[in-house]
Amino acid sequence: MTTGANGDQERLARAGLSRVVEPGDLAALKAFDGLPALEIWDRLQRGAPGLERWSTRLADANPERDLERAAAAGARFVIPGDDEWPDQLDVLEEAGQLTRRAGVPYGLWVRGRADLRHAVTRAVALVGARACSSYGEHVAAELSSGLADNGVTIVSGGAFGIDAAAHRGALAASGLTIAVLACGVDVSYPKRNSALLSRIAEDGLVVAELPPGCSPTKLRFLARNRLIAAITQGTVVIEAAVRSGALNTAGWAEQCGRTVLAVPGPVTSRMSAGSHLLVRERNAVLATNVADIIEATSPFGTNLAPPPRAPQTVTDTLHPDLQRTLDAVPVHHPAPATSIAATAGLDLPTTERYLQTLATLTLITQTPTGWRLAPSIPDPSSPSG
Amino acid sequence: MTTGANGDQERLARAGLSRVVEPGDLAALKAFDGLPALEIWDRLQRGAPGLERWSTRLADANPERDLERAAAAGARFVIPGDDEWPDQLDVLEEAGQLTRRAGVPYGLWVRGRADLRHAVTRAVALVGARACSSYGEHVAAELSSGLADNGVTIVSGGAFGIDAAAHRGALAASGLTIAVLACGVDVSYPKRNSALLSRIAEDGLVVAELPPGCSPTKLRFLARNRLIAAITQGTVVIEAAVRSGALNTAGWAEQCGRTVLAVPGPVTSRMSAGSHLLVRERNAVLATNVADIIEATSPFGTNLAPPPRAPQTVTDTLHPDLQRTLDAVPVHHPAPATSIAATAGLDLPTTERYLQTLATLTLITQTPTGWRLAPSIPDPSSPSG
Repeated sequence: MTTGANGDQERLARAGLSRVVEPGDLAALKAFDGLPALEIWDRLQRGAPGLERWSTRLADANPERDLERAAAAGARFVIPGDDEWPDQLDVLEEAGQLTRRAGVPYGLWVRGRADLRHAVTRAVALVGARACSSYGEHVAAELSSGLADNGVTIVSGGAFGIDAAAHRGALAASGLTIAVLACGVDVSYPKRNSALLSRIAEDGLVVAELPPGCSPTKLRFLARNRLIAAITQGTVVIEAAVRSGALNTAGWAEQCGRTVLAVPGPVTSRMSAGSHLLVRERNAVLATNVADIIEATSPFGTNLAPPPRAPQTVTDTLHPDLQRTLDAVPVHHPAPATSIAATAGLDLPTTERYLQTLATLTLITQTPTGWRLAPSIPDPSSPSG
Repeated sequence: MTTGANGDQERLARAGLSRVVEPGDLAALKAFDGLPALEIWDRLQRGAPGLERWSTRLADANPERDLERAAAAGARFVIPGDDEWPDQLDVLEEAGQLTRRAGVPYGLWVRGRADLRHAVTRAVALVGARACSSYGEHVAAELSSGLADNGVTIVSGGAFGIDAAAHRGALAASGLTIAVLACGVDVSYPKRNSALLSRIAEDGLVVAELPPGCSPTKLRFLARNRLIAAITQGTVVIEAAVRSGALNTAGWAEQCGRTVLAVPGPVTSRMSAGSHLLVRERNAVLATNVADIIEATSPFGTNLAPPPRAPQTVTDTLHPDLQRTLDAVPVHHPAPATSIAATAGLDLPTTERYLQTLATLTLITQTPTGWRLAPSIPDPSSPSG
């Protein structure tokens, strides 16, 4: 099931630790700093002094049973050193120290057929509000499908709103999507997303740091967010209020040195205030389409997004004096060159020369009574704008 | 009417030049570079060699008549050196050389009772698409009213769409607004805005570089844009397609060293693409409200916009272990401390101490069968998201 250089003891120790030590436990980071997992597990088992904090859960911990329970739910426990382990998570060692929050997880419980390491070689997180607007839901689905079409794996949190739309967009495009949960991979949370989570486990991956059966808590959501940020090249916040879990994920992405992007929306929408805050105060990249996201999450200078440009028209490139002459030519009722020269503010010989040039460009036509615009040319006194 | 150190001859010469020399005439910038206005006018009158280009219009030029015509329309001709002349326009001398486009205008035809110089001591340009969305129109009016309430003069171009909404917003807030036109100040363009333009002339100012009676042309709109950018501290693009006159004004604002701001909108709206382009590629400041605009157009470090923040709740500031304990307390059915300790992953004495603290904070209540959340506390397993 899982391969690599790890012995069964290492896997059992880490499975046990994932049950006993809460993600984001500062005391654990302090007590176990730098120790190998086997050594930590051994000390806990021996009831070494100073580790009473973890005694309550230790009594009930049974890693063999957790591994069996996971297997029954179609899940495996992937640990550092396994072929499938995503090395991107190493970044959390330093980021965890910086923020005094959870570091690298002891392992990841993984449900689904895809290879986790392979799935995140090109991955972007799409996150946002649960109570999103229909605009946010639409944009999440569109961006997700578009990124999936470009071979990008979509990572999100399996929640209502933006998360669900992002997962669905990737599935609709037959792309890979990963739901990183704040509970066990066998727990359907939220309940009404259970069909979606089953589908993700079928076609993509459901991943969690917590062992089977665990329920989500507020702190587990916050700790989970670091995993979403760390295993992706960039985090895109689609809609978020100024007080939002998505901004916490964006903060983790910053700390992990990943790109933070934000999708703008109406300034009248509370749901876009968090996105705009990220751009204004935290230097997030404004993401308006798939190309923007691919550019910002690719190695510098590659996959550049084409700037949006309307096609140039022939009149864009006219010399200003030619443009002035053209501006002075009537739309409907032909005028003689003398009158056009006065309107344009140019002398007559110059005006006559320019009129010939404009006629060659088929922008104007000559009639027995003078010059007028060619029928297809829009009125130049109604400029774009 | 107009006061200052200028003699009548200087005013007549400049009025004449504003009739004969087209704004944005590169040949004029080259031929007259650095010469005083009186000298240029004199050379044109004398028919000096090399100036044939301007002969056609010169024959019809009559500055005395233009000044009378302006006075009849309630307008005056303000020139450099007049008390009312806005020195901000000096920036165009250099900007004009940079871009080989029109420099400082020879003078400004001004309609309205307000003092132009005074009106632009605190002024912001609100510009955008003619064919704007109802979102853009709404935002333009709201921002304009809010800025006017803060004593900011609103400058725009008198066109349909964003321009009109910006002017109207300022008028509705009894603020000052200035329409800078690409035609004569006595010309109602566009026709359907004539009531609005009259109202602006009544309560604010209508300003133009072109003498009375002149019609707008494409090049005149582009030259006009430099005046909007130069006389304001910042240009706010509210809605603009990627091909838009508003982006031209933003370009002038950059060249004049003024702040460029852009209001975001839905990424699904073609009308916000220009705003997003400015933020992504030209470093425009994202403007989401009045405070953002005031901050960005004030001297550095003054009038800082308060960052949008939701009020903190008591649970935001809890120690992580207290939060973990709180997370483990059931919402409805009381649980004993032993079960809460196991769920939280903390030892029993610690858990009991924390439960007491949480009770003191009125976050939880003790019942005969154990602890439960206080009724007013939201379920911590439904975090903000």
